[in-house]
Amino acid sequence: MKKIINSPEHVLDEMLDGFAYANAHLVKRVTGTSVIARKYKNDGQVALVSGGGSGHEPSHAGFVGKGMLASAVCGEVFTSPTPDQVYEGIKAADQGGGVLLIIKNYTGDVMNFEMAAELAEADGIDVAHIVVDDDIAVEDSSFTAGKRGVAGTVIMHKILGAAAESGMGLQELKTLGETLVASIKSIGVSILPATVPAVGKPGFELADDEMEYGVGIHGEPGYRREPLKSSKEIAEELVMKLKDAFDWQEGDRYGVLVNGLGATPLMEQFVFMNDTAKLLDQEGLDIAFKKVGSLMTSLDMAGVSLTLVKVADEKWLDYWHMPVETTDWA
Amino acid sequence: MKKIINSPEHVLDEMLDGFAYANAHLVKRVTGTSVIARKYKNDGQVALVSGGGSGHEPSHAGFVGKGMLASAVCGEVFTSPTPDQVYEGIKAADQGGGVLLIIKNYTGDVMNFEMAAELAEADGIDVAHIVVDDDIAVEDSSFTAGKRGVAGTVIMHKILGAAAESGMGLQELKTLGETLVASIKSIGVSILPATVPAVGKPGFELADDEMEYGVGIHGEPGYRREPLKSSKEIAEELVMKLKDAFDWQEGDRYGVLVNGLGATPLMEQFVFMNDTAKLLDQEGLDIAFKKVGSLMTSLDMAGVSLTLVKVADEKWLDYWHMPVETTDWA
Repeated sequence: MKKIINSPEHVLDEMLDGFAYANAHLVKRVTGTSVIARKYKNDGQVALVSGGGSGHEPSHAGFVGKGMLASAVCGEVFTSPTPDQVYEGIKAADQGGGVLLIIKNYTGDVMNFEMAAELAEADGIDVAHIVVDDDIAVEDSSFTAGKRGVAGTVIMHKILGAAAESGMGLQELKTLGETLVASIKSIGVSILPATVPAVGKPGFELADDEMEYGVGIHGEPGYRREPLKSSKEIAEELVMKLKDAFDWQEGDRYGVLVNGLGATPLMEQFVFMNDTAKLLDQEGLDIAFKKVGSLMTSLDMAGVSLTLVKVADEKWLDYWHMPVETTDWA
Repeated sequence: MKKIINSPEHVLDEMLDGFAYANAHLVKRVTGTSVIARKYKNDGQVALVSGGGSGHEPSHAGFVGKGMLASAVCGEVFTSPTPDQVYEGIKAADQGGGVLLIIKNYTGDVMNFEMAAELAEADGIDVAHIVVDDDIAVEDSSFTAGKRGVAGTVIMHKILGAAAESGMGLQELKTLGETLVASIKSIGVSILPATVPAVGKPGFELADDEMEYGVGIHGEPGYRREPLKSSKEIAEELVMKLKDAFDWQEGDRYGVLVNGLGATPLMEQFVFMNDTAKLLDQEGLDIAFKKVGSLMTSLDMAGVSLTLVKVADEKWLDYWHMPVETTDWA
C-alpha cells in the first residue's frame, strides 16, 4: 500500500484536523467529534446535514458552507458514523428551522442517522430525512438493501442547499428531496480498485486489461466485467442503462454529472464527458446543466460515474446555479 | 495502460471539447484552436494568458474565468503549445488593456510564448510576460534550464488575476508578478509515476516501497529516493527544504498550498496538510492563507507538493480572497 499517511488508525482524525485548518475561513471541526460544521448561520432556516463513511472526499465535508450543507458527519473509512456523532452533527447544524438529513442508502448509515434523529427530536429539534439511492447498477449490495447512494447525493446537496438557503421549510424540503431522489439516477465503471488504509490491499482485483461496470463506491461488486473498453463504448453502455431506467422521450430536459472516482485524471473525465454529450445529443435530450469533477470518490479507485437528473421544475435550475461558499463546489 | 480514452492522438481534442461543453456557461473553445477563453470581458483591463502542455488539469483551463485567466492555451500532453496557438490565445484574451503571459519555466514554453508575444505585438497588442520557476527541488532538468515552474503558478493566476480584474495596468502587473515569483517556492514528492497516453507506460519506475523527492510534474528526476516515509516525515523534509530556501524568521507571514499531483486522494492531502501545519506553527510562521487540492497535477502521478508564499504586501491577501468565476477555483 502506497499512501501518504502516518497510521491507518489516525487517518480520520488527522484528515479532519487538516481539513479544518485549511478551510478555517469557512468551517470548523466541532471539538471532540468527527463533525465539520460551517461557521455561517442563516437563523431560522432549515439546516442540511449529510455524511457517512470517509474515503469519498470531497464528499461530504467539502460541501459544507453557505448554500449547501450546514454540517457533515465523517465516519471512519467506508464505515457509517455512529448515532452520537450524527447527533453532534445535527446539534452543530441547527439554526432554529429544523434539520434535514441527506443519507446515502447504506444500511448502517440509514440506521445510525435515524437513531440520531430521534435523539435530536427528544431535544426539541425538528428533524426530517431523505434517503438517496441513485445507483441503478444493482439491487441489494454488500452494505445495503435496495439501491446504493452515490454521486447523485452531491446534486441533492446543491439543489436542496439552495432551496434551504432561500427559506424553504422542512416539510417542503423533504417533499422536494423525495421528488429529486426519484429524478436522479447514476451508474459507474471501475478500472482500478481502491485500497482502504486499515486493510492495506485493494478491495477487489481486476486484471491488467479488465474493468467492471456497476462497482459501488466501497468496491461493492458490479454487474459485468469486460476487457477495458474505449471511452465511447463505456459512455454508450452507461447512457443506454440510464435510458432504460428513465425511459426518456426526445426533448426531455436533464442535468448531467460526470464524476471521477478518485484517481482518474480530469483529462479522462472530460474525454468521457465529450462522448457522453454526443450520445445525449443523439437522444435528443435538452441538457440544462452540466458538471465534471471528482466529487464522490472512492479513495484511489480509478473510474467514472455518470449521473443524470430529469429536471421536473425550472426552479431546480435556479437552485443549481445559485452561488455557494464551500471549499469544493466551484 | 488503463485509461478512459479513445486514442492517444485524440485525447487533447476530445478533452477540450468535453471541457468546453461542460463549462459553456463560463468558457468557450476558440474554434479550430486548443485555446479555452472566458466569455466574460472586462473592457480596457489587462488580460492574463497561461497554458503549457496538457496533463496538469485543472491547470490551466480550469482557472479561466472572471478574476483569473482570460485564456489558457493547451498543448499536447506534456508538450508546449506552438507559437501560433499561443498567439490565438492572446488574441482571444485581449480586451484592450494588454496581455500578461504567465509561463512555467520550461524551455519550449518560454520560447513559444515569447514568439507568440512578438506576433501579437506586431498586431498592436501590448504583451508582457512572467516566467514562473518556483520548484526548488533541482536546478536544470530534462525540459528546462534553471528551476521548473510548478504549483506556485496557480497562486500567480489567482493573485495577478484579482489585481488585473481590479484594474492594475500591464507594467505594474509585470512588476507584481516578478515580486511574486521571487516570493513563491515549491517542492514535491512522488510515490507513483504518471503514464502519458501516447507512451503507454509509466515515465519512470519506483519500487513498491519507494518514493522520490523532488520529481517534476512531467516525471523529471528529483533529488533523492527513499523507502516510503510517513506523512510527518515527508512534511519534515519538504518544510526544512523550504526553510533553507526562504531563510525565514519567526513571525514571518506566509500563504501555504498543499497540491495533489493527480491520483492522490484528498484524504492524504489533508493528512499531509495537518503535519505541515504543525511544523509551520513550530517555526513560528504566521500563516495568512491556506489551500489544499489537486490544482497542478501530472496525469495519474501520486504524490503531493508543498508551496509557500512569503506575503510581502497585505494587498495580496485581498487578491487571494477576491471571489472568482471559474470552473475549478472554489
